[in-house]
Amino acid sequence: MLHVFGHTNPDTDAITAALVYANLLNRQGVEAQAFRLGELNFETQFVLKALELEAPPLLSALQAGTEVALVDHNESAQSTANLSELSVKRVVDHHKLGDLTTANPPYLRFEPVGCTGTILLKLHREANLSVEAGDAKLMLSAILSDTLHFRSPTTTQDDRDAVDFLAPIAGIQNVEEYALAMFAAKSDLGDTPAETLLKMDYKVFPFGDPTRPQEWGLGVIETTNPGYVFGRQAELLAAMDKAKAEDGLAGVLLSVVDILNETNRTLVLSATEEKVLHEAFGAVTQDHVADLGNRISRKKQLVPTLEKYFTPPA
Amino acid sequence: MLHVFGHTNPDTDAITAALVYANLLNRQGVEAQAFRLGELNFETQFVLKALELEAPPLLSALQAGTEVALVDHNESAQSTANLSELSVKRVVDHHKLGDLTTANPPYLRFEPVGCTGTILLKLHREANLSVEAGDAKLMLSAILSDTLHFRSPTTTQDDRDAVDFLAPIAGIQNVEEYALAMFAAKSDLGDTPAETLLKMDYKVFPFGDPTRPQEWGLGVIETTNPGYVFGRQAELLAAMDKAKAEDGLAGVLLSVVDILNETNRTLVLSATEEKVLHEAFGAVTQDHVADLGNRISRKKQLVPTLEKYFTPPA
Repeated sequence: MLHVFGHTNPDTDAITAALVYANLLNRQGVEAQAFRLGELNFETQFVLKALELEAPPLLSALQAGTEVALVDHNESAQSTANLSELSVKRVVDHHKLGDLTTANPPYLRFEPVGCTGTILLKLHREANLSVEAGDAKLMLSAILSDTLHFRSPTTTQDDRDAVDFLAPIAGIQNVEEYALAMFAAKSDLGDTPAETLLKMDYKVFPFGDPTRPQEWGLGVIETTNPGYVFGRQAELLAAMDKAKAEDGLAGVLLSVVDILNETNRTLVLSATEEKVLHEAFGAVTQDHVADLGNRISRKKQLVPTLEKYFTPPA
Repeated sequence: MLHVFGHTNPDTDAITAALVYANLLNRQGVEAQAFRLGELNFETQFVLKALELEAPPLLSALQAGTEVALVDHNESAQSTANLSELSVKRVVDHHKLGDLTTANPPYLRFEPVGCTGTILLKLHREANLSVEAGDAKLMLSAILSDTLHFRSPTTTQDDRDAVDFLAPIAGIQNVEEYALAMFAAKSDLGDTPAETLLKMDYKVFPFGDPTRPQEWGLGVIETTNPGYVFGRQAELLAAMDKAKAEDGLAGVLLSVVDILNETNRTLVLSATEEKVLHEAFGAVTQDHVADLGNRISRKKQLVPTLEKYFTPPA
């Protein structure tokens, strides 16, 4: 039985892609089950609740050699702890290719699109399989989430076409309204502990020389209510400080992305992070906040610049 | 313009996949040109001659950052020298995933099938593009070549289905007859220098600890006339000895695969190779020849066993 899962600190794409891909594989005669590598965020909870779906079970430690399918990630730093001991049979992803290797020829499907859901829809259509209504809503939700309803520069025409195709199957008349409801659910952070806020959409990236990389933790909070987040700035900086020490990181950043105004103001822990943001992006930090302008995509506008900054010239 | 190429020491799949994929990309509006990383073997020459096609040009050194598409390989040891400096945009392959990484999300299409040509046919069908007659013959030739006309254990139902689909488009009435003609052309080695015979279908694999791998050169001669090859055994062993020294390899093997009888008798250079073949496969070497039985697939029956043999237990 193939274990299908997305990255740690799962977002809506990581969870829904696992559910949809496991279902697709089962329909194609490949026994598969979806799992998650962490707690659901409020947006994903909203999406699953509307469909009366249970969250996939939390993945427990897998025995070496267990056959797995990765969705929405491929780097070991974002996956289950012993990924290198597992047998990766399949990957469906839309991120850069990291440190993954396989012992045997795998099935890989990567496309430079905004969302794994967009690729999963293609897999249905290529297999001449109808899209089930629930799966349609899961894929559509993931695409709206990952692309911030087409605001993110990661958006491609394929993502727009996928939403156009999926909306009627999912029974969604007004996509804009549905996206705003999703984003409102995501922004309703209530009394979530600061540690949870930091790690909600958080990935560790190894930068620089692969033989001795320096690891940076990059968190993002996408919200329609940035004022709420900055109201908890002191707590969040303390959580960042703790994460940096506990995980032995070289730096930690938390980008607060204002979805509706498409801006990124990033929390900056110390002079180390301030120096890097200044040298890599020309960003000025004031009172622990750096203005990163309209760089709202970690994948497209933050990580490549940082990668380049940390990579020594050949 | 995307540079499209297969592995060094190109076989029929490496050459035809570059030609077919470049044509497909151009038809889809992506400017692309096919290249090769070495001289054509006699089988590939036979295939191109029947179609009155020129070989793709030899790839010259590419500037850092040049955009490339890899077909039929992904490991740097089998690619152009400065692959790590190039921008890999696309890979279509059916081998295990090696040391490839990318700076940005790529287009990747890997499937565990017998031949890249089988995947390229799927790409045509998924894009609702007709298959041109010449491309049909190129893909069909590659599938027959890589699977030894379905004799290799790497063969899948997808490969058989692809040949059934392509044969009428390619205008080939008798697939068996065409395959035998291809294999005869491949086996007509004439006065080819021993160095060329060794390197005709030759790949270097890093085994063991990735931080300090030991590199093995694994050559294969697939032939309907093994007697010819063993008649040149002394010359071939000398060529293997030279390659081992020049490339600083830990070991060199040359498997002589009798296509029609589906057997593998492998030339063994020294006690080092003899020991490994004995411990990994239980094979007995006599007069520099080890009987590897029906292990006719380097990819499926030699490399995984050697990989396991050289990997220290976790």
